[in-house]
Amino acid sequence: MSDMKVYFFGEGHADGKADMRNLLGGKGANLAEMTSLGIPVPPGFTITTAECNVYQEARQLSSELMKDVQAAVARVEGIMGKKFGSTSDPLLFSVRSGARVSMPGMMDTVLNLGLNDETVLGLVEISGNERFSYDCYRRLVQMFGDVVMGVAGEVFEHAIDDIKAARGVKLDTELTVADLQELIATFKGLVKTHTGTDFPSDPWDQLWGGVRAVFESWNVERAIEYRRINHIPVDWGTAVNVQTMVFGNMGENSATGVAFTRDPSTGEREFYGEFLINAQGEDVVAGTRTPQQLNNHGRGNLPDGNEAKDLPTLEEAMPKAYSTLLEIRAKLEEHYHNMQDIEFTIQDGRLWMLQTRNGKRTGVSAIRIAAEMFSEGLVGKEDALLLVEPDHLDQMLHDQIDPDAPLDVLSSGLPASPGAAQGLVVFSAEDAVEVAATGKKVLLVRRETSPEDIAGMNVAEGILTSRGGMTSHAAVVARGMGKPCVAGCGEMFVDNEKKVMTIGGQTFHAGDMLTINGTTGQVIKGAPALVPPHMDDPNLVTVMAWADEMRRLRVRTNADTPHDAEQAREFGAQGIGLCRTEHMFFGEDRIMKMREMILAENVEARRAALLKIKPMQQEDFEGIFTAMDGLPVTIRLLDPPLHEFLPTAPDDIKDLAKEMGVSVESIEQKIESLHEMNPMLGHRGCRLGLTYPEIYEMQVEAIIGAACAVKKNGVDVQPEIMIPLTGAKRELSDLRQMTLRVAAEVIAQCGTEVDFLVGTMIEIPRAALLADQMAEDADFFSFGTNDLTQMTFGYSRDDAGVFLPDYVKWGILPSDPFQRLDTEGVGQLVAMACEKGRRTNPDIHLGICGEHGGDPSSVTFCHQTGLDYVSCSPFRVPIARLAAGQVVAQERLAAEK
Amino acid sequence: MSDMKVYFFGEGHADGKADMRNLLGGKGANLAEMTSLGIPVPPGFTITTAECNVYQEARQLSSELMKDVQAAVARVEGIMGKKFGSTSDPLLFSVRSGARVSMPGMMDTVLNLGLNDETVLGLVEISGNERFSYDCYRRLVQMFGDVVMGVAGEVFEHAIDDIKAARGVKLDTELTVADLQELIATFKGLVKTHTGTDFPSDPWDQLWGGVRAVFESWNVERAIEYRRINHIPVDWGTAVNVQTMVFGNMGENSATGVAFTRDPSTGEREFYGEFLINAQGEDVVAGTRTPQQLNNHGRGNLPDGNEAKDLPTLEEAMPKAYSTLLEIRAKLEEHYHNMQDIEFTIQDGRLWMLQTRNGKRTGVSAIRIAAEMFSEGLVGKEDALLLVEPDHLDQMLHDQIDPDAPLDVLSSGLPASPGAAQGLVVFSAEDAVEVAATGKKVLLVRRETSPEDIAGMNVAEGILTSRGGMTSHAAVVARGMGKPCVAGCGEMFVDNEKKVMTIGGQTFHAGDMLTINGTTGQVIKGAPALVPPHMDDPNLVTVMAWADEMRRLRVRTNADTPHDAEQAREFGAQGIGLCRTEHMFFGEDRIMKMREMILAENVEARRAALLKIKPMQQEDFEGIFTAMDGLPVTIRLLDPPLHEFLPTAPDDIKDLAKEMGVSVESIEQKIESLHEMNPMLGHRGCRLGLTYPEIYEMQVEAIIGAACAVKKNGVDVQPEIMIPLTGAKRELSDLRQMTLRVAAEVIAQCGTEVDFLVGTMIEIPRAALLADQMAEDADFFSFGTNDLTQMTFGYSRDDAGVFLPDYVKWGILPSDPFQRLDTEGVGQLVAMACEKGRRTNPDIHLGICGEHGGDPSSVTFCHQTGLDYVSCSPFRVPIARLAAGQVVAQERLAAEK
Repeated sequence: MSDMKVYFFGEGHADGKADMRNLLGGKGANLAEMTSLGIPVPPGFTITTAECNVYQEARQLSSELMKDVQAAVARVEGIMGKKFGSTSDPLLFSVRSGARVSMPGMMDTVLNLGLNDETVLGLVEISGNERFSYDCYRRLVQMFGDVVMGVAGEVFEHAIDDIKAARGVKLDTELTVADLQELIATFKGLVKTHTGTDFPSDPWDQLWGGVRAVFESWNVERAIEYRRINHIPVDWGTAVNVQTMVFGNMGENSATGVAFTRDPSTGEREFYGEFLINAQGEDVVAGTRTPQQLNNHGRGNLPDGNEAKDLPTLEEAMPKAYSTLLEIRAKLEEHYHNMQDIEFTIQDGRLWMLQTRNGKRTGVSAIRIAAEMFSEGLVGKEDALLLVEPDHLDQMLHDQIDPDAPLDVLSSGLPASPGAAQGLVVFSAEDAVEVAATGKKVLLVRRETSPEDIAGMNVAEGILTSRGGMTSHAAVVARGMGKPCVAGCGEMFVDNEKKVMTIGGQTFHAGDMLTINGTTGQVIKGAPALVPPHMDDPNLVTVMAWADEMRRLRVRTNADTPHDAEQAREFGAQGIGLCRTEHMFFGEDRIMKMREMILAENVEARRAALLKIKPMQQEDFEGIFTAMDGLPVTIRLLDPPLHEFLPTAPDDIKDLAKEMGVSVESIEQKIESLHEMNPMLGHRGCRLGLTYPEIYEMQVEAIIGAACAVKKNGVDVQPEIMIPLTGAKRELSDLRQMTLRVAAEVIAQCGTEVDFLVGTMIEIPRAALLADQMAEDADFFSFGTNDLTQMTFGYSRDDAGVFLPDYVKWGILPSDPFQRLDTEGVGQLVAMACEKGRRTNPDIHLGICGEHGGDPSSVTFCHQTGLDYVSCSPFRVPIARLAAGQVVAQERLAAEK
Repeated sequence: MSDMKVYFFGEGHADGKADMRNLLGGKGANLAEMTSLGIPVPPGFTITTAECNVYQEARQLSSELMKDVQAAVARVEGIMGKKFGSTSDPLLFSVRSGARVSMPGMMDTVLNLGLNDETVLGLVEISGNERFSYDCYRRLVQMFGDVVMGVAGEVFEHAIDDIKAARGVKLDTELTVADLQELIATFKGLVKTHTGTDFPSDPWDQLWGGVRAVFESWNVERAIEYRRINHIPVDWGTAVNVQTMVFGNMGENSATGVAFTRDPSTGEREFYGEFLINAQGEDVVAGTRTPQQLNNHGRGNLPDGNEAKDLPTLEEAMPKAYSTLLEIRAKLEEHYHNMQDIEFTIQDGRLWMLQTRNGKRTGVSAIRIAAEMFSEGLVGKEDALLLVEPDHLDQMLHDQIDPDAPLDVLSSGLPASPGAAQGLVVFSAEDAVEVAATGKKVLLVRRETSPEDIAGMNVAEGILTSRGGMTSHAAVVARGMGKPCVAGCGEMFVDNEKKVMTIGGQTFHAGDMLTINGTTGQVIKGAPALVPPHMDDPNLVTVMAWADEMRRLRVRTNADTPHDAEQAREFGAQGIGLCRTEHMFFGEDRIMKMREMILAENVEARRAALLKIKPMQQEDFEGIFTAMDGLPVTIRLLDPPLHEFLPTAPDDIKDLAKEMGVSVESIEQKIESLHEMNPMLGHRGCRLGLTYPEIYEMQVEAIIGAACAVKKNGVDVQPEIMIPLTGAKRELSDLRQMTLRVAAEVIAQCGTEVDFLVGTMIEIPRAALLADQMAEDADFFSFGTNDLTQMTFGYSRDDAGVFLPDYVKWGILPSDPFQRLDTEGVGQLVAMACEKGRRTNPDIHLGICGEHGGDPSSVTFCHQTGLDYVSCSPFRVPIARLAAGQVVAQERLAAEK
């Protein structure tokens, strides 16, 4: 079984099934599954992803594979009663890629394989449509020349433009059969000129070329870029689907379309889709013709001015095919327990299904679908929870336009991906990357987007296009990225070359400010006020309640101010896992006192300066404790090296000297003396706390002093004091003793008993290795996975940018370890430290407070490793809650099996 | 047993024994052992080191301890028939420190405890010597006032000077009884004035004060400094030895002395020692009076002009006591199986032993003693090997003065520690530290040295003193440090205050260049040529043969040039464990080409520049391979970040711009673009190799090209190519593939088959954690413990200087982990990587190539962890060989037990 290279499907029988997507790719697995379900699927076969890896090694198709393909073709011939290469009734194939996860638009497709000067005559005879037949042949040469042989697409486009000009016609459809025949000859000549090779007339050469092209396309730049953004390993590979051609472009009784079983934008339980009469499948997604709606519901929702508003729906135009499609829709949802994104073709009135897959959707939609599919009884609670992807929540948290803000609405397009976005207009992906790199927000404006634009879309705040529908590239990708998008804004004219656009009678240039509302489709001049999002969607409340009910892992937040603490609490944070005290020192009134402390010549002067800082620190802590009433608050003592607090610009140094009443030279000397070759590995964290005990003493006084003060006001205060950067047992035990001593003094002074914990960050590899010793003096460990990642890999986060993106691109690392916890290496240390720590101190609390605390896959790891909590930035809290619930849901489902 | 606080010894019976040195200190354990052996030892008792730790916590003596001490005193009173505090026949005590390892001069001593205005009368009566008795009393008040009560020693010295001036006398001995009585009263007044407290007349208060003072002295600055240099943990503590006073200063029939059972300088089997008639023990070691020799052998070796040349030996002056001493010498060597350093006192003709311990010795001496004690049948081969300390070899490797060099000999002193040293004259330890810090070599010149000078001695090339003997502080410490020393150069006058010296009729100032020959005692003007040492001492050859015969661990060297390689081979290196290719790029002719490569705008220009470097690299490798004919050579591919090769000074940048024909700005931009926040964790090692594959490709071509070339010349070449800084499996597997491919091409081109290995440094924590994966693509692992230590601890070696010395001083770390491998943390990673690596690849070679490869305790760890080899700098190779043999010797001895 596992050695099979080719999986057949057709006529109700299939070698594969839906759960074989790793081997057959998503498309192949689902074609097999649909075939087995009795749904009409053009017969064909899938070459496995394993063969893709074989190909990448050998760079050629193996003879074993070719033998298996020949056998599969013979089987399809048997079913269809046609022959591949026959001059009387030729069987034609499409070749499409199909990776394990959907990579929209990434991989290449070739249609109509099997046509040549002889077989096209057979197609003419069978179809009775000479124009259609030669147009198919023309498309084959064009696509094959482009995708397989590497001739630039515009070479063919220019040839078409030329012949249209010569004939004095405007539309492709106005070209005659003779024109098409001439065009085919021209195309062949162009192929020969540009490649030195003839277009292959042998159908088998065409088939092998198509298969090879799919495998090759796995490693083109745009596929690599997509994998990098989406953390897809290179060795997953792609499958190749070879399938009997059916034609949506055989005439007015043919059509092709795409649909979602529910509205992918709102989640509403309405069959939603678009189609084009007399067209091939690529025409819909390309966004070059505005498609018609499937049904009245969809058409009713179109904005005024959309040309499809006046065109018939599929329900009206082909009621029989539509009703078959409705039946299939119900069957698919019941079978897959998920909203489906389908592709279909109607050939001469007969419906064929070409694809089904789980549909991409907006956050609002995902949550509504999950809530409703559960209440419809279609899925259980665990499955329903898993229908929401953590990234969907990101969209729920996006900005919206302030309802009270006055708006200068220029026009409207399709509300392709929700949320409001504003930024400086850029007209190309390159410009987007360049301008965004300067720290400015950008809005990417294009006629339409294509896979080459991925990097630019990734850095843009939002995307605005003048063409294309809700299933266009821009819309699909933007929804996947959780970015606001307005698509198909027909009243807008964009000249991407000249970098200028007109909309609502006004002209805008690159660098002008625009706002889009992806929820309504509005395009707005300038930058109206935005309001932060709310978590009050009732479906979201339902879904989050499931997550909270299922999860074992607690979710805290990283917050340094009462404001952040309050926000995070609204997002469901169950405490603060990391409060960085140093950020408090950067306020304008404080930094001077901090500098006074650093410039102090002796411990007395240092103490005097600290005494001025202390009341401010205590006030900060009182605010945070009050905001977190009843919840734990972990406060990390001073961590960064002292030189971070000193000025570097000559003018600032002069100012400081004046303010302090010392010489510029003395300050420069101090800065020089504090300079470090590798500050990341320098004099910071507990090392500072041991060298200058008065700093940490002041901080402990402020923390416990604040705790006593708010407790007197009735606040339930739960301080946890965290010693950073420990790597030796004595560092921790000495500072723990100091903390207990100082705290006892403050408590005695205040006369208020306060319970508190003392623990440490585990962020130095040695601390993890010796966690059994560290646990003797720690009530808790909080894994600082940012620094732990830096030291375990030997990467400086500030410097790794020159090679780390390449590492991910080249597959040396599966993903950026600063975004996604490296479970193999860093995770090994975390797991080791948990085990050793618990062995010494079974009651120890274990948490994580690096950036990874908000990354879903890292949350899953934390759950599996037995941590007690994760801590992340406020906006990631809901995502962490969801991820923590989902891992339990998955465990429960696995246990049921 | 383990709860006993006080261990008694006396009259042939002792609670303790020699192997209890951890609890009783070296001195206490040996006093107990000597007592049990029937050797005459003044009775007394030892307070344990455990009590020292108890004291450090409480800062006072416990009542339990005081009770046990009182009982022990009563027991001594019983034996001696005297009473502590008796006014008729008072028992007097000395109190001395005694740590686990000998810390010469570090700890304080108080003599004559028990004397006061009343008891002194009893001493007068019993001794019949009024002057002696009051001198004892005077000494007590002076030492107690200084050591216990903290009055500066010079306060008392000034009082003595004053009374001598008033009396018109020059020598202490010229003072009368009445003068001494007046002095005692004056001293008491000074104590009261300086401390506000009376000198305690109660003998028990004196005793408790003395015990407390010993414990307190464990934490004085100089003791802390000594521990830091010698890696002695703070919690070892010191014991306190309280012992019945015997007097070497009771008259002309009394004496005190120190001796070595063999010559500590040459190792010759001659009883070697010095003594002073009518003196207390401290007088000998203080170096203030030039002592007489024990016997004719010693006197014969004195240099002309030494005043003891004309004084009688102990053999002549007190033949009976000398003959008893000879018997004890034999008994001790037979018992301890080691050369002993003893202290004795002769009171009124009767010999008492005050101390025995293993004697410090020079390298030459240690090796001769080991060889001879084995051939005498006194010890087995394993024990004999363990008589040599690894550091002793360091001395064998020191420079000697070129025998053909013309010498301007200024004078001669005692050859106190062998080897030649030359440097700029400095007159204080502070100056030594200051000047040495600028990178200059210094020679420390003092009248005599004291423990305060330790830090200065540590940085000096050698030490020259005008006073003191072979057992003076300077001599003992210099031998321990393996530094050349000429002591007691009586013709030299040193004014340490004015920083000027006269010798041989000439005057020298700070900063003048002098040379000393510690092997001959000569002091030489200027800097005559030095020759490197030889390993041809026949005893050394014997001892090293034992080590080589016993050890399992192979020893390689770190060498980057044919010259270093040849030197290391002479020292017994069994190959090169680390050849750093980057050092080759810094030559004047090469650095420009390297910079050309770095400044290249594209890969073609980079390749062109590399093509110029390649022949030079290949030539280097040919030289190294030839020098290492028949032995493996591990070559590490380029490791440091590229910015290290670019200039930083504006003038250098200008020059480079001119040379390259580019603008200064373009070079500054390149430098800026290569700047890193944390270069230690930056774009270097294999990360560079992957970004710029052409660099590593060139290096592999040069290595394999060189191997082919020398093989054609008949050289047995064994190249091992090492990929640095790997942390992910794919880094290694990609670069291994590159190496194999390029090597195959070069081999095909040359037509010579060459075997080689490909392996990696393990220096990133993640590589150790994933060593099972790394081993799939590695023929060998070489642990780069320098970087591994940096990353495991999160310490930057360049920056840790601001806190690491404090960490060691405060006991937070037992020693500097860059000097001595941290077996707990870093060692855990090494052990883990060995185990995982071998699990995947049982044939994998395992070695270490950090600085630790030459540190004896780290070598021991490497043996125990099962590594195959260590690699260290050429001069450390013999030390590593010895250490590797010694660990096996220890295992064998342990197995015998």
